[in-house]
Amino acid sequence: MEKMWQGRFNESSSKLLEEFNASISFDKELFEYDIKGSIAHAKMLANQQILTNDEKEKIVFGLNQILGEIREDKFEFKIEDEDIHMAIEKRLSEIIGKEIGGKLHTARSRNDQVAVDFKMYVMDKNLEISNLILNLISTLNSIAKNNLDTLMPGFTHLQHAQPVSLAFHMLAYANMFKRDFYRFKDSFERNSFSPLGSAALAGTPHNIDRFFTANELNFKSPTSNALDSVSNRDFALEILFNISVLFMHTSRLCEELILWSSSEFKFIEISDKFSTGSSIMPQKKNPDVAELIRGKTGRVYGNLISLLTTMKALPLAYNKDMQEDKEGVFDSVKTAISSLIILNEMLKTTKFNKDNLLKACKMGHLSATDLADYLVKEKNIPFRQAHFITGKCVSLAESKGLDLSEISLDDLKSIDKSIDEKALDVLNLQNSKEARKSYGGTANESVRKQIVEIDEFLKNSQI
Amino acid sequence: MEKMWQGRFNESSSKLLEEFNASISFDKELFEYDIKGSIAHAKMLANQQILTNDEKEKIVFGLNQILGEIREDKFEFKIEDEDIHMAIEKRLSEIIGKEIGGKLHTARSRNDQVAVDFKMYVMDKNLEISNLILNLISTLNSIAKNNLDTLMPGFTHLQHAQPVSLAFHMLAYANMFKRDFYRFKDSFERNSFSPLGSAALAGTPHNIDRFFTANELNFKSPTSNALDSVSNRDFALEILFNISVLFMHTSRLCEELILWSSSEFKFIEISDKFSTGSSIMPQKKNPDVAELIRGKTGRVYGNLISLLTTMKALPLAYNKDMQEDKEGVFDSVKTAISSLIILNEMLKTTKFNKDNLLKACKMGHLSATDLADYLVKEKNIPFRQAHFITGKCVSLAESKGLDLSEISLDDLKSIDKSIDEKALDVLNLQNSKEARKSYGGTANESVRKQIVEIDEFLKNSQI
Amino acid sequence: MEKMWQGRFNESSSKLLEEFNASISFDKELFEYDIKGSIAHAKMLANQQILTNDEKEKIVFGLNQILGEIREDKFEFKIEDEDIHMAIEKRLSEIIGKEIGGKLHTARSRNDQVAVDFKMYVMDKNLEISNLILNLISTLNSIAKNNLDTLMPGFTHLQHAQPVSLAFHMLAYANMFKRDFYRFKDSFERNSFSPLGSAALAGTPHNIDRFFTANELNFKSPTSNALDSVSNRDFALEILFNISVLFMHTSRLCEELILWSSSEFKFIEISDKFSTGSSIMPQKKNPDVAELIRGKTGRVYGNLISLLTTMKALPLAYNKDMQEDKEGVFDSVKTAISSLIILNEMLKTTKFNKDNLLKACKMGHLSATDLADYLVKEKNIPFRQAHFITGKCVSLAESKGLDLSEISLDDLKSIDKSIDEKALDVLNLQNSKEARKSYGGTANESVRKQIVEIDEFLKNSQI
Amino acid sequence: MEKMWQGRFNESSSKLLEEFNASISFDKELFEYDIKGSIAHAKMLANQQILTNDEKEKIVFGLNQILGEIREDKFEFKIEDEDIHMAIEKRLSEIIGKEIGGKLHTARSRNDQVAVDFKMYVMDKNLEISNLILNLISTLNSIAKNNLDTLMPGFTHLQHAQPVSLAFHMLAYANMFKRDFYRFKDSFERNSFSPLGSAALAGTPHNIDRFFTANELNFKSPTSNALDSVSNRDFALEILFNISVLFMHTSRLCEELILWSSSEFKFIEISDKFSTGSSIMPQKKNPDVAELIRGKTGRVYGNLISLLTTMKALPLAYNKDMQEDKEGVFDSVKTAISSLIILNEMLKTTKFNKDNLLKACKMGHLSATDLADYLVKEKNIPFRQAHFITGKCVSLAESKGLDLSEISLDDLKSIDKSIDEKALDVLNLQNSKEARKSYGGTANESVRKQIVEIDEFLKNSQI
Repeated sequence: MEKMWQGRFNESSSKLLEEFNASISFDKELFEYDIKGSIAHAKMLANQQILTNDEKEKIVFGLNQILGEIREDKFEFKIEDEDIHMAIEKRLSEIIGKEIGGKLHTARSRNDQVAVDFKMYVMDKNLEISNLILNLISTLNSIAKNNLDTLMPGFTHLQHAQPVSLAFHMLAYANMFKRDFYRFKDSFERNSFSPLGSAALAGTPHNIDRFFTANELNFKSPTSNALDSVSNRDFALEILFNISVLFMHTSRLCEELILWSSSEFKFIEISDKFSTGSSIMPQKKNPDVAELIRGKTGRVYGNLISLLTTMKALPLAYNKDMQEDKEGVFDSVKTAISSLIILNEMLKTTKFNKDNLLKACKMGHLSATDLADYLVKEKNIPFRQAHFITGKCVSLAESKGLDLSEISLDDLKSIDKSIDEKALDVLNLQNSKEARKSYGGTANESVRKQIVEIDEFLKNSQI
Repeated sequence: MEKMWQGRFNESSSKLLEEFNASISFDKELFEYDIKGSIAHAKMLANQQILTNDEKEKIVFGLNQILGEIREDKFEFKIEDEDIHMAIEKRLSEIIGKEIGGKLHTARSRNDQVAVDFKMYVMDKNLEISNLILNLISTLNSIAKNNLDTLMPGFTHLQHAQPVSLAFHMLAYANMFKRDFYRFKDSFERNSFSPLGSAALAGTPHNIDRFFTANELNFKSPTSNALDSVSNRDFALEILFNISVLFMHTSRLCEELILWSSSEFKFIEISDKFSTGSSIMPQKKNPDVAELIRGKTGRVYGNLISLLTTMKALPLAYNKDMQEDKEGVFDSVKTAISSLIILNEMLKTTKFNKDNLLKACKMGHLSATDLADYLVKEKNIPFRQAHFITGKCVSLAESKGLDLSEISLDDLKSIDKSIDEKALDVLNLQNSKEARKSYGGTANESVRKQIVEIDEFLKNSQI
Repeated sequence: MEKMWQGRFNESSSKLLEEFNASISFDKELFEYDIKGSIAHAKMLANQQILTNDEKEKIVFGLNQILGEIREDKFEFKIEDEDIHMAIEKRLSEIIGKEIGGKLHTARSRNDQVAVDFKMYVMDKNLEISNLILNLISTLNSIAKNNLDTLMPGFTHLQHAQPVSLAFHMLAYANMFKRDFYRFKDSFERNSFSPLGSAALAGTPHNIDRFFTANELNFKSPTSNALDSVSNRDFALEILFNISVLFMHTSRLCEELILWSSSEFKFIEISDKFSTGSSIMPQKKNPDVAELIRGKTGRVYGNLISLLTTMKALPLAYNKDMQEDKEGVFDSVKTAISSLIILNEMLKTTKFNKDNLLKACKMGHLSATDLADYLVKEKNIPFRQAHFITGKCVSLAESKGLDLSEISLDDLKSIDKSIDEKALDVLNLQNSKEARKSYGGTANESVRKQIVEIDEFLKNSQI
Repeated sequence: MEKMWQGRFNESSSKLLEEFNASISFDKELFEYDIKGSIAHAKMLANQQILTNDEKEKIVFGLNQILGEIREDKFEFKIEDEDIHMAIEKRLSEIIGKEIGGKLHTARSRNDQVAVDFKMYVMDKNLEISNLILNLISTLNSIAKNNLDTLMPGFTHLQHAQPVSLAFHMLAYANMFKRDFYRFKDSFERNSFSPLGSAALAGTPHNIDRFFTANELNFKSPTSNALDSVSNRDFALEILFNISVLFMHTSRLCEELILWSSSEFKFIEISDKFSTGSSIMPQKKNPDVAELIRGKTGRVYGNLISLLTTMKALPLAYNKDMQEDKEGVFDSVKTAISSLIILNEMLKTTKFNKDNLLKACKMGHLSATDLADYLVKEKNIPFRQAHFITGKCVSLAESKGLDLSEISLDDLKSIDKSIDEKALDVLNLQNSKEARKSYGGTANESVRKQIVEIDEFLKNSQI
């Protein structure tokens, strides 16, 4: 095929170059957006009388035919077509003739075309991921609703710290993912500007209407400066970052699911549907899904750093380096979508072993802080000293092989004689949990408020 | 000094541990926020009758005295104090006595204390950086206002592409930084929730008022889930990312400033105030500032990936790994602040060599696209064919050592006889620029709108 | 298909899991290595009388048939087969029967199988890339040989600094790539240990001979500890790092090629074979290849950080996260291979514009350092003062619109009267270059030595 | 202070620039290397009769005095001195007079000076870290020697897989760190070339002897190309990468130490010397050191990506961006040194709870693979089928609440009647471990060989 810009060249393109330069192997992903963008552009050109109505009709007809061909897998992508834009344009000329087909490129350049296609993709996937995040939050909230009274140890430093409810623990994740949702949403709003009509870098002498195409393609408005518009990949960096933080969160959740599946913890049993066995060890049941999601954190971080690196220090406007913007985004997007779907399904079918969770609460003197608080509140002992006394009580309990919640009043008095019966109450694990009624705390009263908040958030966030 | 948690331990802490564990060498940066947070906490405790008014007064007095001591550099930071929180608390007990001093820690843990301190720092620095971004945009807009008619080559692939105005080029950067501003602003809004009162991880049995402290510390509201609150470092990741994108933008601007300072380009002269010489080559005048800012892109990207890595796969809630969250943020924040200040001052004093910019326009056949557009519009030739014809004209001009804007009508006709006198008009460089009147284009009419938009943005964004 | 580990499970695997878990879409890349490894394993099993000779023959026959099938694209990869190892094993059982086919897995696990396959791939690609690096160095040395007397400005801070030869400049890159070569080579040597026979994590009770398989697969020796062997991905990190540094180097070279192709520099003309045009600007000739290679630096850095992230904090031994190790490596390897090939071809056909290179030398007072050196050596003036005097001379030349190499003796004397005629000699640009005879310097005498060194290196490094 | 390159400038340097540009706040770290390098340079200049002997003596005297002043903290570092090189040079002129002091800079530039100083630092720290790695390996080997018979579960997917010895597990880490050691060593050898004498970028006209200074500073030889020498930061990237892989390994070890310290695992007790308590929860004993080291993985990864980013696409030779090379290296080096020291001390004092390790072996049917192997070897059942049968046995044991090692022969026969008494032997855990005699396996016979290998490595690697 003769290249569009062949006129200038004396030598034919190297075969090596053709392969190295072509992006069609991956940017075909954008075909729906490219066709949608071209239809909007053609309509606008007709409205502005740059195309006749008849020309527009033919172009739209041809583009829709191509859309069908690609969807039905009847379209042959060739390396010589370089990219999805050229492939579609060439096919359009085959269908409706070169003369009219060629007119579609009026008042447009590959630079703004690729910018608008890619942006539409990113905006669309933003919404898709956002919806999957809502599903995940909904699942977490459901687990919370069923587990207000499921006692488990709250951890810091992977050490037992204080008794909490499983509901409370699940809501911590619900709140993380809620922040993720808003991060995606803000990014969506902030980037809802159409670069189409920026042409190569400086705008176009044709009398175009960029507000029309922006509106047609669901953007709020056209972008303000053409040079910036074709150089801008902030929207791509944002989705890469948002997915990275999302995976930081899922990696934490998955780390816990893996820990909790171990023989040592046995807090949960992941459904057989989402576990795998070993090729050599028949007894193994492995939390592969959680491990894979945790592992995929690496790839989404990498994709972020890739594009940040590529964009560093590029002079304006478009540089070919920017062709490297897409594969990483496609990869992170697909990774996010598949991971969110399977994580959600896995969570829904995971069984929590309430007995083991409760048993764990009796390891680690979880109500120690309550004793310290009691000393402060009831005995008016300064906190730091109360803390010290409690430490002594813990040491004593340990030396007797008891949990602090099981120690006798006499033993307590042997450390500090001012301690009285009420101390035994505060050392009770359920009491300990229920005492933490502060806003955001683990007491059922507080947790119920958190559940309602999430329910309302979900109701108001449907996309 | 005896550690607060010493009661439990039989052996004294290793000296190695003390040094390895301590964060005071860097978290002293947070002293203002720590004291501010403690004062708010003390007031709340008094309001809730957990402290007497007298106790509160003494605490506030003591804290203010410490604030003065640190500001006046009279406070000795010691490695044994571990962190800024402990250092201040210990000093407080020295000033007002251990009994009352110790009560400040009621209903609070180091986990929520460090979370609220660090968040206040990040929110504050968000505003400071945002303001500096506004200053930079204002400078770029000023340059734009003075350079509507300064012609320069617009580049793609670092090749001359089309003539644009310097105003238009500067506004591309103004629009990038405007996106940065909104990215910081959205992050500010999204994170305006106070973790104070989350205590260690599960809330507290004390009857505290988290809405009061949130309000006192300029947060919109308290956070919803205590476990999440002490585990959350999203706000830190966001400022690291926002600074990374900001530096991606400044690295592009600085790359151009460096190119433009070269003997080959000579588009600008950076003021002597912001250049340096060479220790061995007396004739050199180096754009060190632009190079340093470009180079610092590495460090801010690195700080982002550091915290993403550290947070990966941490189980809930607080883990000591999270002590690694601060140094990178401090470093990126300081880098952003100093770089934005000096970049702004440098830009203000940079001289643009208009003659050289104009001369450059005459290299590279910048009005070639205009000829192609003319063929489409006037001669009704399909774009792709017009493009081909123009390519031939460029080849002819090159073979004669001329710029396409200098070619004769006869020469044009020798390529395609339909070409007429109007072609010479469109090949004129000023005409070429002025033709691009589309929204966002480089024609003065379009650029003036962009300037007004930026002016309005600046007026509405003062913090 | 029934999973190998199905016996243990009550529910059938979720379809979602199957897709999420499967690696066959990418690890089929390893088919040659997997078959080679299995053949070596089968031979060893026969030698050790764990298999009969007849069983071994059948297995080898079957495996070779599969090798042919895959090479000829007659092998159907199915998602249900999970990974390349299972796919090949299943097909083997189809060809030679389940009973004998099943025996191949004796004394082996997927953990050591995947480790050895992947390591063979990495070692092989190490050699392939190393060879391409040698080709590139050879091209650079050829350019050097032809350009000992091609004068060009040496730059620091993108400012003209001192005159050098193009040969000298090209040799700087030859030396960078030489370091790359040795980095790959050291990595090859350091990792030449076979993990095969480590089994799942603890070795095997079968009487195997790991030295035999190591030797058969061209490793120096088997690895020492089975647990480490299946957990180790250092070799993968090393090739990712080595490719990253390689691209750091190529990004510098490509940055220069892009700069040198600009209208402002015009130092080189990249062959039409390796340039592209613009879809909208007919006059453009873009250095796309150099831009793409520079841009791909992002992807190879990203792949490095991805695997570093994935491997962080994984407990021993194999975790499913480690399945994420391959795609990034495959991507970086392919990127390196295609980039090195095209970069080499492009360099070979790039034309250096000697006239422009020379002209550029006359901008920027390149022999200023020589004047300073002359003042030190001939006039015994301390260097710092000589530097100061030279600065004054430069200022004077600039005020007269001259290059320092064109200034008159009278002018020089007006700054410092001790200056004599010899100063004019040292200010001559060729003399300036030829003066730098120190080891590693730019004088032809020194450069010739560098060329010989590279020639010898190339002779001794053929793989 | 008047800048050395002030002659050329009309305006005085901006105060902002001074602060932004200065590197003295961090590069003072290099003072020993700078002085050592200057002394070698002065000696060489004297040998080459560029300096008189008397001048050299004075310079060496002055430099040694400065060395003392800095070591004794009597040297005032000022921001106006820009960097350590200038600070020392200025002080030298104060001590021995400007005339002679100024001569030290003959035949040298800040570019090669900074390159050689920084490289000496990196080489030195390479050795220091290498030694600390040897210490760590030695500790791991000692633990191994004492724990050949300490049974523990080997894990994959954090699930119990097969019984191994603690010795075997510790040796996995010894082997990782051994690879680290060799990676550092290879880097040391590969970079042992001195850039001193490369001058600004092109060598020097002075008759210097770079072999002399290379030798004096313990380099193998001088570098080959001056332009490359001042542009090269590969050695810095290598130490950053080597430290990153080292921390990937330590993060895995620390992850295990953290898991093993949990109430659920209780495999180890970290000494009180290396644990900390909680400010609010008196019963907590936190593995802070292990968490911090794990967390610091983020910072060392970040430092690597920072320098890779900074160096991307820099044209030759020195650019100011490269001033950003040091802080990250200093930070990673210090992090590595302090972490290796404390990790080693912590490991030495960690108590392994052998009872708990043994108890854990009885969870998870660890000898399941042995049963499968028995079926293959004794009953000639193909591996895949044996695997299936074993799965059934595991299910049966689970349904009876037993570990597979505790199941009766009758139960086994109910699954497959061919199973005989020998099966009970292979299901015994100690037998299971001892069966894995293959090279690199967990049987004592194999582990003893590994211990000897490490001992020999340590003997041969003392630096």
